[in-house]
Amino acid sequence: MCRFTFYRGELLQLSDLVTEPENSLIHQSYAAQEREEPLNGDGFGLAWYVKDQREPAFFRSITPAWSNQNLECLARVLRSDCVLAHVRAASHGLEVTEKNCHPFTCDRFALMHNGEVGAFPAVRRRLLESLSDEAFSRIRGTTDSEHLFAAFMDELRKEEPSDGCSAMAAALERAIARILELVERHGDGVPSFLNVVVTDGEAAVVSRFTSSDSEPAHSLYVSHGARYVCEDGVCRMEAAEGASRAVLVSSEPLTDDVHWDPVPENHVVSIHEGLGVDVREMNV
Amino acid sequence: MCRFTFYRGELLQLSDLVTEPENSLIHQSYAAQEREEPLNGDGFGLAWYVKDQREPAFFRSITPAWSNQNLECLARVLRSDCVLAHVRAASHGLEVTEKNCHPFTCDRFALMHNGEVGAFPAVRRRLLESLSDEAFSRIRGTTDSEHLFAAFMDELRKEEPSDGCSAMAAALERAIARILELVERHGDGVPSFLNVVVTDGEAAVVSRFTSSDSEPAHSLYVSHGARYVCEDGVCRMEAAEGASRAVLVSSEPLTDDVHWDPVPENHVVSIHEGLGVDVREMNV
Amino acid sequence: MCRFTFYRGELLQLSDLVTEPENSLIHQSYAAQEREEPLNGDGFGLAWYVKDQREPAFFRSITPAWSNQNLECLARVLRSDCVLAHVRAASHGLEVTEKNCHPFTCDRFALMHNGEVGAFPAVRRRLLESLSDEAFSRIRGTTDSEHLFAAFMDELRKEEPSDGCSAMAAALERAIARILELVERHGDGVPSFLNVVVTDGEAAVVSRFTSSDSEPAHSLYVSHGARYVCEDGVCRMEAAEGASRAVLVSSEPLTDDVHWDPVPENHVVSIHEGLGVDVREMNV
Amino acid sequence: MCRFTFYRGELLQLSDLVTEPENSLIHQSYAAQEREEPLNGDGFGLAWYVKDQREPAFFRSITPAWSNQNLECLARVLRSDCVLAHVRAASHGLEVTEKNCHPFTCDRFALMHNGEVGAFPAVRRRLLESLSDEAFSRIRGTTDSEHLFAAFMDELRKEEPSDGCSAMAAALERAIARILELVERHGDGVPSFLNVVVTDGEAAVVSRFTSSDSEPAHSLYVSHGARYVCEDGVCRMEAAEGASRAVLVSSEPLTDDVHWDPVPENHVVSIHEGLGVDVREMNV
Repeated sequence: MCRFTFYRGELLQLSDLVTEPENSLIHQSYAAQEREEPLNGDGFGLAWYVKDQREPAFFRSITPAWSNQNLECLARVLRSDCVLAHVRAASHGLEVTEKNCHPFTCDRFALMHNGEVGAFPAVRRRLLESLSDEAFSRIRGTTDSEHLFAAFMDELRKEEPSDGCSAMAAALERAIARILELVERHGDGVPSFLNVVVTDGEAAVVSRFTSSDSEPAHSLYVSHGARYVCEDGVCRMEAAEGASRAVLVSSEPLTDDVHWDPVPENHVVSIHEGLGVDVREMNV
Repeated sequence: MCRFTFYRGELLQLSDLVTEPENSLIHQSYAAQEREEPLNGDGFGLAWYVKDQREPAFFRSITPAWSNQNLECLARVLRSDCVLAHVRAASHGLEVTEKNCHPFTCDRFALMHNGEVGAFPAVRRRLLESLSDEAFSRIRGTTDSEHLFAAFMDELRKEEPSDGCSAMAAALERAIARILELVERHGDGVPSFLNVVVTDGEAAVVSRFTSSDSEPAHSLYVSHGARYVCEDGVCRMEAAEGASRAVLVSSEPLTDDVHWDPVPENHVVSIHEGLGVDVREMNV
Repeated sequence: MCRFTFYRGELLQLSDLVTEPENSLIHQSYAAQEREEPLNGDGFGLAWYVKDQREPAFFRSITPAWSNQNLECLARVLRSDCVLAHVRAASHGLEVTEKNCHPFTCDRFALMHNGEVGAFPAVRRRLLESLSDEAFSRIRGTTDSEHLFAAFMDELRKEEPSDGCSAMAAALERAIARILELVERHGDGVPSFLNVVVTDGEAAVVSRFTSSDSEPAHSLYVSHGARYVCEDGVCRMEAAEGASRAVLVSSEPLTDDVHWDPVPENHVVSIHEGLGVDVREMNV
Repeated sequence: MCRFTFYRGELLQLSDLVTEPENSLIHQSYAAQEREEPLNGDGFGLAWYVKDQREPAFFRSITPAWSNQNLECLARVLRSDCVLAHVRAASHGLEVTEKNCHPFTCDRFALMHNGEVGAFPAVRRRLLESLSDEAFSRIRGTTDSEHLFAAFMDELRKEEPSDGCSAMAAALERAIARILELVERHGDGVPSFLNVVVTDGEAAVVSRFTSSDSEPAHSLYVSHGARYVCEDGVCRMEAAEGASRAVLVSSEPLTDDVHWDPVPENHVVSIHEGLGVDVREMNV
């Protein structure tokens, strides 16, 4: 059920996530290593932030990432300080369409997801009913992930102020709690797996979550340091002497040359505006 | 806002609708003649019924009909006694995806639409709320047309018996009435244009409808006779001595060699199981 | 490098090859079992023959077979007595486009290939130069397979009569010999792997070939009997008391319930007009 | 037969060509004004140059420009000082595939074309035979335009120095002369229409050419000044007091607020490295 990579730091050429690393996102599209099923060939998507533009840009396609020549070319020329990249393995019964490709964007926010909302077909209608008209009308596809994003946007609007790292973290936790409650009531408590990245282009919040007692959360790793750089086919994260200046969060390590910390289950990683990183237990 | 053609009669090669006539559906995809905007390039779809199979088959694509080589090839070899063919001009704001391509199918029914539900973005949520869980869960796209189909299916289930020509006609009229009421209440009565074909593979019902006092309904024509045949590039409808054995309903005449009757505004054409045709005022 | 399945016999619903068997062609698109790389996600194609039409029909797409809803629907309704089905893993440097999807068709012939012409980039220009104008102008893509088909068509025209099983076998062997000679001269004898099916809709010829001393030919199996049938999810080949009435040739066995004979290396299987099957050493 | 727009000047947001002007390239994809046939819906392409990268980037798609959401998004965030944009109306018999979408790129050069090589099917093989191995192997599609580009690259390599504005102009003229000679010999002199832009990212050369005595060349306009700018939906070219700093060449004027000079028939526009513009008769 999908693989993703998130980057926040200095301007980075997107190919340093998408094509350069040994276990780049393109590699994960056909040979993911930490899932039983190695294939993530049901489309892909990029979202990235650009100087002086409030809303992120995106590029999504229903063809597999490994053969998309536009993707390869764009990755070579695009640079950004905040990037989301995702390869999809469609959940059973969910269509392969551009509108179902992650990352999803709304106003200045972007979200991507690896996992699934338990018993989503049974829960979907209740979840839709609970949304504001605005959040409802933004949903254009049929994925659990986009519905979760809509719930997140509604929760975020209740925050004061309604942006920044802690507002996003609180909204994500409340959105997840809301959905779990619906799964409990209408979906026989079928397990949910919710590895989610959400960002406003400056700060970001990432969850690693399972609602199951027996099935572990999907894999998730974080790495931070002074600078992430790929040169001559080798990618590495330079150690920071003081504060972090570059952060990577990824379903799977991109490369051996970078030190990766597993995110503990049911924890949330906060990447603050100043690029400080903290990890704490989720509150759901 | 789309063009369509429906056929019911003896086994017909699909190319006799799609490629052979002067003003074939492929021709209408780039050069429709009875709309201000000649272009219907936002994908296309076919649905057709096959002997011994209850549910119709379909073939849909988001690329324009005029350059689709699979379409040309399939039309050459497929034969059916009940065919729906549609080229799409997407309404503003509605995505070009396969799930938004007509005809829509559900169980043994198929539906296609030319026109629009007035103020659909304002009406959509209310319409969804009014649906049964079953009809709700069938909707996979974002078009007004597919939502109308869902309302139709709900109305049809209330009929006794819940099939046949008169049940379909009653269900279509009630579904349209329901939607118009929602448009009245939530959409400032923005005009709706509802040329709709719905069939179960044997009988069919076709509406030509406008809710506006000033704007006419979209064009719609009917032709029937003993046999519709294309030979050496000339298509014609042979006159019937007794009952009709072949019926065509089309947004635009396919060819000069066929006699076409305009369907009066706000009328419904019923094509009965035995291929009898009657036209009467709609009851909405 | 691709997987394929060929059927010749009584009218068969295409789903009995494409979706029904445990190891159906759709299954082989993401989980092929007899290749190191299980993935054949670079598009797919079907070709099939229809009564009273000389030329085969085809349906090809660049999206993976496993998520193509048109494919699933067409397989359910199409019936044919001669079917070619192929899932592609693009050779390095060869584009994923419809024109590169197998099967290729020309006049009443269809061909599909699993493997590769050794050093094709070095050989391609010489091969093109050797073609007749007619064969040259038919090539619309960039695969080695389509170029091989062009050479086959040229060789076939030299046969007298230029059709039937033995003419096709002779032409295939000569086309392969011609290409191997070019590889020898211009491509340093890089090994070629040429599992090829070619048919005129009645008879068919299938090769299993490697030019390497050390690397085996790609896998290939044949099965024949009285009737191939799938019922309640179980597919089987009924034993024939007399002559065969149904023949399957497949890169991998489709199901355990069918007896499959491996085709020996560098042998050619001839499936005659009357459905007799013989296997003999190739003459290249 | 296609429409295109070329820009060279200060960094420009691509939307200022693609979406902002009244008669933007997206507008020309469905409503071109200076061709009998207003439709250019057989795919589109962009190529643009990026600081510190020698080779241009590209984005091409076979779906119509008017509904491509990736295009709209990319145009909003991409900035370049040298941009080629093209919407395609496929010549009869030429496939709609990404490899047939303009602009074509090779090393640091990019080319796009509006028009056609006369009797191309009859000429194609002779043209291919005349190419160097390197130019031959670069051709991945089937358009006359890409073959012309290959001939151009071969001619360019004969120049000394083999780059810059005058080398490109000479190579383009010789490539066209070579092709016209082949058309004369093998194609009964069927007329050719060759509006071509070729650039190395700094200088550019643009031809407006017809080989017919009776049929005019396709439309082509040039505009230059101090700065091309779109603000609040109005695009204009500011007059230059001294040398030009911004140049547009377009099949059709993009907007009324810009002064456009028609390029005379059978003339070539040279846009020099320093953005000086001169127009002279072609030498073919």
